[in-house]
Amino acid sequence: MGKLDFKDPVPSDIDIAQSVEPTPIGEIAQKLQINAEDFEPHGTTKAKIRLSVLDHLKDAPNGNYVVVAGITPTPLGEGKSTTTVGVCQAMGAYLGRKVVTCIRQPSQGPTFGIKGGAAGGGYSQVIPMDEMNLHLTGDIHAITAANNLLAAAIDARMFHESSQSDTALFSRLCPAGKGGARSFAPVMLKRLKKLGITETSNPENLTPEERSKFVRLDIDPETITWRRVMDVNDRFLRVITVGQSPTEKGQTRETGFDITVSSEIMAILALATSLPDMRERLGNMVIGNSKAGEPVTADDLGLGGALTVLMKDALAPTLLQTLEETPVLVHAGPFANIAHGNSSIVADQIGLKLVGPQGYVITEAGFGADIGMEKFMNIKCRYSGLKPNCAVIVATVRALKMHGGGPPVTAGKPLDQTYKNENVELVQKGCCNLVKHIQNAKKYGIPVVIAINKFATDTDAELQAVKAASKDAGAFDAVVCWHHARGGEGAVDLGKAIVAACEQPTQFQFLYPLDLSIKEKIEAIAKETYGAASVEYLPQAEKQIELYTKMGFGGLPICMAKTQYSFSADAAAKGAPSGFVLPIRDLRASVGAGFLVPFVGDMMMMPGLPTRPCFYEIDIDPVSGRIVGLS
Amino acid sequence: MGKLDFKDPVPSDIDIAQSVEPTPIGEIAQKLQINAEDFEPHGTTKAKIRLSVLDHLKDAPNGNYVVVAGITPTPLGEGKSTTTVGVCQAMGAYLGRKVVTCIRQPSQGPTFGIKGGAAGGGYSQVIPMDEMNLHLTGDIHAITAANNLLAAAIDARMFHESSQSDTALFSRLCPAGKGGARSFAPVMLKRLKKLGITETSNPENLTPEERSKFVRLDIDPETITWRRVMDVNDRFLRVITVGQSPTEKGQTRETGFDITVSSEIMAILALATSLPDMRERLGNMVIGNSKAGEPVTADDLGLGGALTVLMKDALAPTLLQTLEETPVLVHAGPFANIAHGNSSIVADQIGLKLVGPQGYVITEAGFGADIGMEKFMNIKCRYSGLKPNCAVIVATVRALKMHGGGPPVTAGKPLDQTYKNENVELVQKGCCNLVKHIQNAKKYGIPVVIAINKFATDTDAELQAVKAASKDAGAFDAVVCWHHARGGEGAVDLGKAIVAACEQPTQFQFLYPLDLSIKEKIEAIAKETYGAASVEYLPQAEKQIELYTKMGFGGLPICMAKTQYSFSADAAAKGAPSGFVLPIRDLRASVGAGFLVPFVGDMMMMPGLPTRPCFYEIDIDPVSGRIVGLS
Repeated sequence: MGKLDFKDPVPSDIDIAQSVEPTPIGEIAQKLQINAEDFEPHGTTKAKIRLSVLDHLKDAPNGNYVVVAGITPTPLGEGKSTTTVGVCQAMGAYLGRKVVTCIRQPSQGPTFGIKGGAAGGGYSQVIPMDEMNLHLTGDIHAITAANNLLAAAIDARMFHESSQSDTALFSRLCPAGKGGARSFAPVMLKRLKKLGITETSNPENLTPEERSKFVRLDIDPETITWRRVMDVNDRFLRVITVGQSPTEKGQTRETGFDITVSSEIMAILALATSLPDMRERLGNMVIGNSKAGEPVTADDLGLGGALTVLMKDALAPTLLQTLEETPVLVHAGPFANIAHGNSSIVADQIGLKLVGPQGYVITEAGFGADIGMEKFMNIKCRYSGLKPNCAVIVATVRALKMHGGGPPVTAGKPLDQTYKNENVELVQKGCCNLVKHIQNAKKYGIPVVIAINKFATDTDAELQAVKAASKDAGAFDAVVCWHHARGGEGAVDLGKAIVAACEQPTQFQFLYPLDLSIKEKIEAIAKETYGAASVEYLPQAEKQIELYTKMGFGGLPICMAKTQYSFSADAAAKGAPSGFVLPIRDLRASVGAGFLVPFVGDMMMMPGLPTRPCFYEIDIDPVSGRIVGLS
Repeated sequence: MGKLDFKDPVPSDIDIAQSVEPTPIGEIAQKLQINAEDFEPHGTTKAKIRLSVLDHLKDAPNGNYVVVAGITPTPLGEGKSTTTVGVCQAMGAYLGRKVVTCIRQPSQGPTFGIKGGAAGGGYSQVIPMDEMNLHLTGDIHAITAANNLLAAAIDARMFHESSQSDTALFSRLCPAGKGGARSFAPVMLKRLKKLGITETSNPENLTPEERSKFVRLDIDPETITWRRVMDVNDRFLRVITVGQSPTEKGQTRETGFDITVSSEIMAILALATSLPDMRERLGNMVIGNSKAGEPVTADDLGLGGALTVLMKDALAPTLLQTLEETPVLVHAGPFANIAHGNSSIVADQIGLKLVGPQGYVITEAGFGADIGMEKFMNIKCRYSGLKPNCAVIVATVRALKMHGGGPPVTAGKPLDQTYKNENVELVQKGCCNLVKHIQNAKKYGIPVVIAINKFATDTDAELQAVKAASKDAGAFDAVVCWHHARGGEGAVDLGKAIVAACEQPTQFQFLYPLDLSIKEKIEAIAKETYGAASVEYLPQAEKQIELYTKMGFGGLPICMAKTQYSFSADAAAKGAPSGFVLPIRDLRASVGAGFLVPFVGDMMMMPGLPTRPCFYEIDIDPVSGRIVGLS
């Protein structure tokens, strides 16, 4: 193949993306031998792949499973998505391998805010890049709708409980039907069971005490962790007071909005393995506690079913393609701090079946490998049962120079000359960061390939230094690639290295077993992965650990909320710091998603808009109707 | 045809809807002779019809254009949507006529709240009814995203202006490019023009005064009319305070959320006639005033283009079908109080081309005819240039009894016996309401057909009374229909009456010309349509009328925000009140949509959730994967 018409300098992402006519998505699906009944076209360039494909292929063997992670990045990013896309173009278009790229759906916040889109870049992109960066097939919008319906239900329920007697609540919650008899809605049976009430057919038979327990969730407003969400960078919604209309009778409450991708529902979408599994997880989400300290769930509010109905279509991954006609499954995009930062389990499962035993699924883990890859292994693989065959770690000379002591790299500011001129020593010094990531990855019992994402200013000596350090640290291979400028052609060596790595034997293992205590699990990650000497728990964290243990959530895996800019809690500590104390400020339970989130410092859950956001450039060309200015 | 398997009593809406296997949507499109390139499938039961179809059919003659409105309703609704759908089933499946139903997309708020869905009912429904009532093809979600991006941009801009000098704002808004030269983004040229600044190529050439005027929108927070939206019944968002995070440095502001369908962007979607027209309207939306009293637009904020990009796909109507295989275009669903309550112009235009000169487009106008039909004529038809051939007014014996003095009808409470037993006199008395609507409709110079939506308890004498009153008032015809129980079969007579009415000559005219003053236009509607003796303007309304006249918005049509439960401002005044004073409390300008909104009393823009919302019943059947409990 190699149909791309390369230009130097590399044109803008949208210009490249629009210069390639996408192959009809039905043809992409046909090459993957997807049944017509499992294929749901959304126009001619997008399609949803229904989960029924897994039933149809349940006896087919899986392909090779490759996770792409990165070293500790600069704020400019090291090209992890671009590498993921580029190496798939290489494997599909140059190496004749069946390959599926699994990648996260970008949030619209950055698309219109600061960062721009996230469909790869240069000659390694997912197309149509505008569809990828905008609504796509509506999954994120479905999450917004579901998340906010639950939020509305919480405040409305507290409002109704505050003004109604047990009898009034009871007669409204279990209204008399046409025949005059009251009945429970099916979703109420879960609450009855949880309360230990054995009467499940006739509501009238509940004792007054049971009735009161049943109708009153008695939510303690101080404990509510459920926030509203929006897929927009709206900083003024970070902290708000709601309920200030006279119609709400003074029941104001301080709360706020996060960006949609940080919703627990997004994490659930990424971790669910089937529609019934998603139903369970959505119903089990804990939104806060009752005043008696019992967790209150979405099913207690009667909402698990409706949330599943809202999320039903979103559970099907979206099929797109790369610039070189290889298939891409775009699905879910959980935040990598408050959630696990990986695309969906079902997309990976579908991909592995579709490529078959000689094929490859290349899936990306967000943030640095200390976060994204760690969560890939210990959360995503734990829930999916899948075992990776190989890990790829993306490194750049730029980031390694920063880790070696180079001046700060700041988005929107000119890059220091250090990053444009040769400085082998600085690169070598900075390789400590890469080495630590390699050591971490090897603990999972799989081979590690280093992808050195080459920039025009990198010199051979610098690139050689990275290769040497990688090999010394036990990497299976370390290869230079230049897919941004040359698409798949630039990542052929990387593709070959992955193929060779996947032929190695593996002994996959988790970093920690689930039956350790919460603190032991946190410490395993902090010491083994981050290099911390110890962990310090602030009082709020101690309190939450005790509470969650008591509530029976102690057996969940851990999802650390930590900066991606350092192994430590201090974003300024570059390289491979060690001997530090990792502070745990607080803990949150994402019971539906199935993990506990220790907070290492403050996490920003709602970005803001700068003075001149990306949207100034974005418009429709009135003649062609094409989108311009998307980056 | 007549393939429906009728049951008595009529089963639940979703049971009927799921009992009919939809015809593949591609076949529905083929029968309409839609080109493959104008057809964008979304799965097998939904498709978007691209606006390019209008280019392809620009020389084709239009079909007959029929608007369906209703008498002043009870809170239970009189079956306007059901009649619209039922008569299309009759015309398509029984009368061999080409027909397209044009109908609004329902909000998800009521679907999960109190009212349930809005896809018709009984054996007259649009299917799949779950798709219709849920995300459909994402248009409402696109509006939420666009509306809220603009809201975020307003607060962020005020924040940045408050902390930055003119020079800092200037250097950020017009940053130096790669070559070091500053440039204007294309969207900025509009602002330059508005400010009378002639320099449009080199930002550096602006004088300091011009620079300051250019970079400072200087928005007066007190004048901001732009609110955030959500397609959820979340009453606690009606009034909120934003900006309470320390990161916003104390710049708190009281604002709130409305339900998405009340967004001006929804009104624009419904009124835009092309993509460039939508671009203009979105850019022209006024979000508030500068402290100097000048209107501030979305384009002043740099957002008109990005909003259009977000709304681009939404501009294509969605093709669905009725239970009897006739085509339906679902598109837009603006609130009928703060906006004009009619489905989109482009869907009607497409439908009229597709059905051809012997065919029929049946489009529905929301609320009672005093609101929905008045706005259909004076706003929608004015912007589209289309002229209706006939108006249908839906009446029920139940509502007429209420207008005749029957006891109140309240949602969720048992219906009084008055509404179940024969009472011809009460019906006759209540016909004053219907008569007034007939007289109003006839003022537009078109024939009027009365559809009497028959309930099981209605008697022949009651139905005859309605027929007689209709004919006496000058209706072209008045026919009884029972499509809820019998689908198209039950509306054959109505279909025949419409066909006959459309053969009548028409002399279409508006109620008022645009060059009247704002007050004269308001009074034309109040006196001619509502029966008011006079109009009273509260001081805030006087102030706004003066302001908008000064700003040059006086030539826009009027979109009254009034209760649908009475011709007057008092929802309890049933029948056909006259001689009353209509109070105008306030005025808002929807400059992008292109109308002025006088407020007659308070309008509720954000519904709430009851103690037991619809969502308690809604779930997924784990075995079949089907949705249950949607109503």
